[in-house]
Amino acid sequence: MPSTVTPAGSSTIATNLPARLVAELQAVLGPRGWSMEQDVLAKHNREARNKFTGMAELVLYPANTGEVAQCARLCHEAGIALVPQGGNTGRCGGAVADPGQILINLARMDKILETDARDFTMTVQAGAILHHIQQAAEDHDLLFPLSLGAQGSCQIGGNIATNAGGLNVIRYGNTRDLVLGLEVVLADGTVWNGLSKLRKDNTGYDLRDMFIGAEGTLGIITACTLKLFPRPRHLATAWVALPGIEAALDLLALARRETGDAIAAFELMSQFAQDLCISHIQNCITPLETRAPWYAMIEITSSRPRDDLASVLEGVLERALEGGFILDGTIAQSEKQRANLWAIREGIPEAQTLEGGSIKHDVSVPVSAVPALIEQGIKQAQKRIPGIRPCPFGHVGDGNIHFNFSQPENMPKAEFLAHWEDLNRDIHDIVAGLGGSISAEHGIGRLKVDELVHYADPAKIKLLAAIKQALDPQNTLNPGKVINHK
Amino acid sequence: MPSTVTPAGSSTIATNLPARLVAELQAVLGPRGWSMEQDVLAKHNREARNKFTGMAELVLYPANTGEVAQCARLCHEAGIALVPQGGNTGRCGGAVADPGQILINLARMDKILETDARDFTMTVQAGAILHHIQQAAEDHDLLFPLSLGAQGSCQIGGNIATNAGGLNVIRYGNTRDLVLGLEVVLADGTVWNGLSKLRKDNTGYDLRDMFIGAEGTLGIITACTLKLFPRPRHLATAWVALPGIEAALDLLALARRETGDAIAAFELMSQFAQDLCISHIQNCITPLETRAPWYAMIEITSSRPRDDLASVLEGVLERALEGGFILDGTIAQSEKQRANLWAIREGIPEAQTLEGGSIKHDVSVPVSAVPALIEQGIKQAQKRIPGIRPCPFGHVGDGNIHFNFSQPENMPKAEFLAHWEDLNRDIHDIVAGLGGSISAEHGIGRLKVDELVHYADPAKIKLLAAIKQALDPQNTLNPGKVINHK
Repeated sequence: MPSTVTPAGSSTIATNLPARLVAELQAVLGPRGWSMEQDVLAKHNREARNKFTGMAELVLYPANTGEVAQCARLCHEAGIALVPQGGNTGRCGGAVADPGQILINLARMDKILETDARDFTMTVQAGAILHHIQQAAEDHDLLFPLSLGAQGSCQIGGNIATNAGGLNVIRYGNTRDLVLGLEVVLADGTVWNGLSKLRKDNTGYDLRDMFIGAEGTLGIITACTLKLFPRPRHLATAWVALPGIEAALDLLALARRETGDAIAAFELMSQFAQDLCISHIQNCITPLETRAPWYAMIEITSSRPRDDLASVLEGVLERALEGGFILDGTIAQSEKQRANLWAIREGIPEAQTLEGGSIKHDVSVPVSAVPALIEQGIKQAQKRIPGIRPCPFGHVGDGNIHFNFSQPENMPKAEFLAHWEDLNRDIHDIVAGLGGSISAEHGIGRLKVDELVHYADPAKIKLLAAIKQALDPQNTLNPGKVINHK
Repeated sequence: MPSTVTPAGSSTIATNLPARLVAELQAVLGPRGWSMEQDVLAKHNREARNKFTGMAELVLYPANTGEVAQCARLCHEAGIALVPQGGNTGRCGGAVADPGQILINLARMDKILETDARDFTMTVQAGAILHHIQQAAEDHDLLFPLSLGAQGSCQIGGNIATNAGGLNVIRYGNTRDLVLGLEVVLADGTVWNGLSKLRKDNTGYDLRDMFIGAEGTLGIITACTLKLFPRPRHLATAWVALPGIEAALDLLALARRETGDAIAAFELMSQFAQDLCISHIQNCITPLETRAPWYAMIEITSSRPRDDLASVLEGVLERALEGGFILDGTIAQSEKQRANLWAIREGIPEAQTLEGGSIKHDVSVPVSAVPALIEQGIKQAQKRIPGIRPCPFGHVGDGNIHFNFSQPENMPKAEFLAHWEDLNRDIHDIVAGLGGSISAEHGIGRLKVDELVHYADPAKIKLLAAIKQALDPQNTLNPGKVINHK
């Protein structure tokens, strides 16, 4: 039933949404609680990598959990789908609405509700920006360790809905490991209050972890209680040259033991990736003269009042040299030197963009299978596209390599990028053969729904469908994401 | 259809199980794979605390996952319930069979399939004994940190099915946090192969955590991949006298920060609990002359090659003295002194038994609410039973207090124990008011099914039922545990 509605302060807009539903939602949310303006919608309908374009004609901005619940109930009754959206920084089209679907954005629900320095917990609304949470923890001399590129704009609700990874996973785990409790609005508008601070609770099935990583298809996360940690007071950062990729694993195992599991980051990159960054990104300086096929950055941290981490890290490098795991290594002697190391690691994606086209993968394998992944993947890529320049780097301690490839030097960018899906299939086949995952960090969203069905154990797909059917039988919560239901 | 079957090496036994099903199961499993002998069944039908008596007439001992799957399929087709059982050390009747139900015990599936020192993982069959897993990790100079009283006989499958807690949770988390992957046989005999070693995997809903803690009501865990950690090379252990229970929380927060989160155990006990143990358990020596209402034991560990943990812990105690969080403290100077401290902590339950009747609770609250729980709980208990002697102790860092009470000195034991349910209700009411859990470590089993319904958010109960219905619509997997279905 197409309708014409007149939003406050806006011109008349035609929409295919049921007029009664739109009016009811507007009444619940008040004039600040929704928008149908084209420029506002354009921002929400744009997807980070421009792979998808949303078609929402209405975006809702609830002010509290009760309003989210009422929106869900009304949409459920009308049979209209709700698509939850956080900071809209995802990479897989998980927050993109089809025509006739309504976006619900939690930006107004951004409050930090409580920080408890004795519980080491913080309770926040789902729309809180990750960076604000990090800062609020720091204000209590505590650490919220989730750290990723989009932290200035992504919302914690989206981080939880996608079980975001990032840089500190080796020490503190994925987002899943940082959440104690959740409040969730279910498909029919029921509120599940699981906003628990408990460290131990064995009262029935683990609902919390069912909603974490479900990408808004089972419920809308409205608030969460997060784990905090002592804030590091010391750190030490090294850059090492590796004789090969197997050596990276030996070094990692050695460093885990000898630092007392104090590794905050363990980042691997190929010589090509390092050099590309140094040549493209201003002020980046080669950390080591020694030429090697692989380099790694290790950072260790400690919250002890006195802790000579430089000595600890020196000890690791000495043993690694003795064991033949590294060819050379250096420890940052100043914050400036440390910043240079991080600038290299973090500059790789930008350097790749400056170098031309890139084909990327978000994959993981068991840590011990990283060498096989790299070796087989490069071989296959070179077979498919002679001259292709592999640019692997990333979180080797999590088995999570950003297995990127830069275009051959003399190939037009468009011609190279036309291989995207074929090369993805090649790499995903290798990943699957190694017991790996085709989505390590970014989720399934809309992008990988078919890919998941292609690779997953059929028993798993049946279980996913059974859970979706149990929690959202009308399929009104973010339909078409994670799993194609009905 | 009652039947008479003749098990190998046993006399003829009448059973109410369908004869055809029994014959089919026997054919699948072979002569070593089942028993109907009374003395064998008696062992499996006995429950740790004698609160429940199982009535199984048949116990199955499958040799591999394929056999488990066939058993599940046959029982599913016949509409006969399967009750999974591990080491049968649970406290809540979770592995107890009703008449007409069949026990399935995984004792024969006890192999350690693989240990990978570079992945820091171990893959084992679900029937592996926890202590054997700990030892196998040690053989690789690694640690599997799950540690609890029953470790000599409990099976890892049962630990996972109940999300067991124990002593090291403050550092390494609950069993849930120690599992990377699972293999599970579903109600209809389908095998879900989720035996992953991945540290990052965002491909759909979190099936792993749904099965963990589900107490065998959603599937039968047949194998798992576990996380291992560097084995500690150093430790330091302190005993401190506390002016009050609030001080324990200040000390805990201080120690988390100043040890660099190296706390392996932080155990609180009342003066009564300490003294009871020292008076009843042979060779236990008073660690501190200072009399105080509360004592705590702190143990910190490190895998660094050199780490002066005694100095680290001394620093913590100095700052705690300055802050007024402790009255006195001592650090164990020898393994003998350390053993004495652990003997006191671990001797409390036995000392309570020697002292007479005890009423116990397995509860948790937010760490910051522990003082309120203790204060309100003691007041209420003394009101109900004048002269009752509170004996609280346990994992304060997890908010998990073993809130035990010893009988008044001059009350007959039976008269005291008759108050069990009333006192449970009192304490559980207080726990619920503080946002706590009525089952911190032991699960729901059969014991707390009604209690869970009484205290839980109705939305939660509906979700649990929806999940059970989705995964086990015929209710043939451990029916009547966790949730009463149909």
